[in-house]
Amino acid sequence: MALTDTAYPTDVALLTDLYELTMAQGLWESGKLEEEDCFSAFYRDLPFGNEFAVMCGTADLPDLVENLRFTPQDIDYLAGLEAPAGGKLFKPGFLEYLRDFRMHVDVDAVPEGELVFPREPMVRVTGPALECQMLETALLNTINFQTLVATKTARVIEAAQGRPVAEFGLRRAQGPDGGMAVARASYVAGCSSTSNVLAGRRYGIPVFGTHAHSWVMSFDSELEAFRAFARTSPNNCTLLIDTYDVREGVENAITVAREMEARGERLAAIRIDSGDLAKLSKYVRGRFDEEGLGYVRISVSNDLDEYTIQSLLNQGAPIDSFGVGTKLATCYDQPALGGVYKLCARREAGQSAWTPTMKLSEQPYKRTIPGIQQVRRYVDEAGSPVCDMIFDESYLEGEGELRGTEMVAVNDAALKTSVAGMDYRELLVPVVRDGAAVAPREPLAAARERCAAALAALDPEYKRFLYPQVYVVGMESGLARVRDELVRERMAATGSALPWKAPKRRRA
Amino acid sequence: MALTDTAYPTDVALLTDLYELTMAQGLWESGKLEEEDCFSAFYRDLPFGNEFAVMCGTADLPDLVENLRFTPQDIDYLAGLEAPAGGKLFKPGFLEYLRDFRMHVDVDAVPEGELVFPREPMVRVTGPALECQMLETALLNTINFQTLVATKTARVIEAAQGRPVAEFGLRRAQGPDGGMAVARASYVAGCSSTSNVLAGRRYGIPVFGTHAHSWVMSFDSELEAFRAFARTSPNNCTLLIDTYDVREGVENAITVAREMEARGERLAAIRIDSGDLAKLSKYVRGRFDEEGLGYVRISVSNDLDEYTIQSLLNQGAPIDSFGVGTKLATCYDQPALGGVYKLCARREAGQSAWTPTMKLSEQPYKRTIPGIQQVRRYVDEAGSPVCDMIFDESYLEGEGELRGTEMVAVNDAALKTSVAGMDYRELLVPVVRDGAAVAPREPLAAARERCAAALAALDPEYKRFLYPQVYVVGMESGLARVRDELVRERMAATGSALPWKAPKRRRA
Repeated sequence: MALTDTAYPTDVALLTDLYELTMAQGLWESGKLEEEDCFSAFYRDLPFGNEFAVMCGTADLPDLVENLRFTPQDIDYLAGLEAPAGGKLFKPGFLEYLRDFRMHVDVDAVPEGELVFPREPMVRVTGPALECQMLETALLNTINFQTLVATKTARVIEAAQGRPVAEFGLRRAQGPDGGMAVARASYVAGCSSTSNVLAGRRYGIPVFGTHAHSWVMSFDSELEAFRAFARTSPNNCTLLIDTYDVREGVENAITVAREMEARGERLAAIRIDSGDLAKLSKYVRGRFDEEGLGYVRISVSNDLDEYTIQSLLNQGAPIDSFGVGTKLATCYDQPALGGVYKLCARREAGQSAWTPTMKLSEQPYKRTIPGIQQVRRYVDEAGSPVCDMIFDESYLEGEGELRGTEMVAVNDAALKTSVAGMDYRELLVPVVRDGAAVAPREPLAAARERCAAALAALDPEYKRFLYPQVYVVGMESGLARVRDELVRERMAATGSALPWKAPKRRRA
Repeated sequence: MALTDTAYPTDVALLTDLYELTMAQGLWESGKLEEEDCFSAFYRDLPFGNEFAVMCGTADLPDLVENLRFTPQDIDYLAGLEAPAGGKLFKPGFLEYLRDFRMHVDVDAVPEGELVFPREPMVRVTGPALECQMLETALLNTINFQTLVATKTARVIEAAQGRPVAEFGLRRAQGPDGGMAVARASYVAGCSSTSNVLAGRRYGIPVFGTHAHSWVMSFDSELEAFRAFARTSPNNCTLLIDTYDVREGVENAITVAREMEARGERLAAIRIDSGDLAKLSKYVRGRFDEEGLGYVRISVSNDLDEYTIQSLLNQGAPIDSFGVGTKLATCYDQPALGGVYKLCARREAGQSAWTPTMKLSEQPYKRTIPGIQQVRRYVDEAGSPVCDMIFDESYLEGEGELRGTEMVAVNDAALKTSVAGMDYRELLVPVVRDGAAVAPREPLAAARERCAAALAALDPEYKRFLYPQVYVVGMESGLARVRDELVRERMAATGSALPWKAPKRRRA
């Protein structure tokens, strides 16, 4: 958001959907200020046909919570809002309450770079109901998009088979922040650099870039343009050779490479940004090699994504690095993760036990999972993930060593299995307690390393693009039972579990 | 970006691709500080299968230009950057130059809300080459996304046939700015409100929202939740009735509507956010009408776009308003406009005439249009647009009244026509002169009205979703001739205009 070194410095309170504030007023007026909620943020559907998502955005959450305050200007604005049916939307007493508002919630979240699967909690927010609600929009705005970009990036990096991938998407991103989020999330998931200089400054991401077609067009000839660029940037010299014709461009680049050699310098690379990149890269590689310029690298760009990169490498294109822009920055083939933030449990003032809650729907896949959820990731002897289990500590079934070891697949009630004896780690870790960050922001490099390790540990079957193996996510049997009971109870209340037709009725 | 009332307050200089700065250093070092360029920002391909785009983002350009300054922190960061081949990326003299840098460019742009067609200049930037270059990334970041959203919105509004559409997309947008840009652009193109409170405060857009499923789940029963909401918000009461089951929800809403009537209040509306919206809305309408509650409106949401809205209305669904989120905020079916910024002419120090420039490519559609471009929109007697003509004042052909009245279609050289005697207006208007805004920012309502008028004037054939009529964009015959000459000259330079194969060569 604001262009400083923290992502959410100030004035984030209004970055929310209006209904969060009208509901907050309702909770305030209904005497529910002491009521506590537990919300879970999760996604239902995997993006891009991928079999996992890469968590990202977690690191912004503490700033978001700590800075959620209402400025006097915010209060003035809210005080002026008219209700649709006349009168003011907000009551003076509620606005007074907002004046000194600060958050007291606890936030537990999956660390950045870790893999997350459908339905499991990515972030869990616990605390006063009004505060939990107030966080919804900005929290989703933060994790939805960064997780989506990190996931897309993991696919691109997989396709590039170890070749560096630079992120070039700023000009096609959804505004400045879109560009910043893309640079950040794509670096976490494996990009080697970004063209976005501000992201370089703010996040310490390596920046990369040389020149555009307009540089070439600014001179009377391409050769003159290349010579001028080599003179000004001998230590950062990648020449873009497709402004007019790659055959001409490569010969001009060869001329300049020889001139640089004579000065004790080296042409680092050429870039091709249009045309048949497989054919052109082979031609260019051949020409450079013939001329004894085997050290000049070939970089390509032009609407690349994981599929074009895979295709180029399958064709044996001698490409050394890729620049990926639009398709990565916008997550072109699926530009929204669709993550949601749902109430899972609530506790009235003075109660000690949580009441599980659940959203039903005509669409069964929109049913939520209740409870104060945590996730265990079970791994084999080699440390590779085998399955995940969502559980609520208070509903665990079984005795002794078998306690909490039976699970039911989230999307297939017939699939029951035991995880007894398997190693696991728990994914949600504390990031905010009583409204304050529990630790300083971790270096972005730590998230990047975590992601690389997580991807390396994941079996290849889950990573292929075509028909990846489905990763099993289950609910611990006690949690599954509680959920089933809630469904039955709710359906009994409405009279039928079957689909229904609207009865024929007269219109009034 | 920063959450204040202007979109680009400070620190925008680094919001750029690194190559803009390496090229700037090159121009500085090559003694080209006095050289002038003219760039055109345009798009090549229409989004969503639409036949027009709605210009948006123009109003942010003056702020962008005026605030493009380098802070001492920016300079320090740049000074520390290492070049790939060792040494520093930027030279001390260049960094000193940046310290006092300010823009002197002229910017002409199509006003917000106006329609723009492929290939024609949306923004024209003229001035010192280095400055024009420096503006590229942020300019594209600004206009690409807002224009895309405004265009998508125009489709959604067309589908809704006059019913209000509220923008609900903040949680799925690409970061905070993505959300702000969506609220702004969708309001310009016809949305009636946004859920984004900050966009309401910053841009004066009407805000709308009531409650979420979590409100219902926070109470022991839906009826209790509805009652509490009606008590707290009697003048803004839209009840979300699908948390558990719409049949149950509508009966609870009817109960609450009667209770409100008894207090002299009115239930404004209900909202349905899942399930079969056609079936459910008919059922709900029937129930309300039977109960004499014909005034209660029906609002729906749930991954809506122009196609679902069109389908619902074709089915006769009695829906009064729509909430559109993810699919609008992300422009789901085509999340990037792909607008580019290309050098069209340049002028060396001391010259008076501009030299036209042009980018070629193996891909003919990537060829640019040269010249200092302006666009005329020709209209019929009723004021409906008939065709557009791109021209450069200095290349106009013909004499007297016929001067500049012959044009060649951009994408079909065989299509030549005369626009003699037709009324027209010119689309590019001055927004920045010598680096400063020529006028205060216009109210957003003015852009919204311009858009409504432009859409109303456009013949329906261009607005239908399936096989819309193609709008003709031409080049004035003099400009077309200059372009042809440049293509032939460049192709002669590279020896062949035919496709080519890489010669078989030995690898070194």
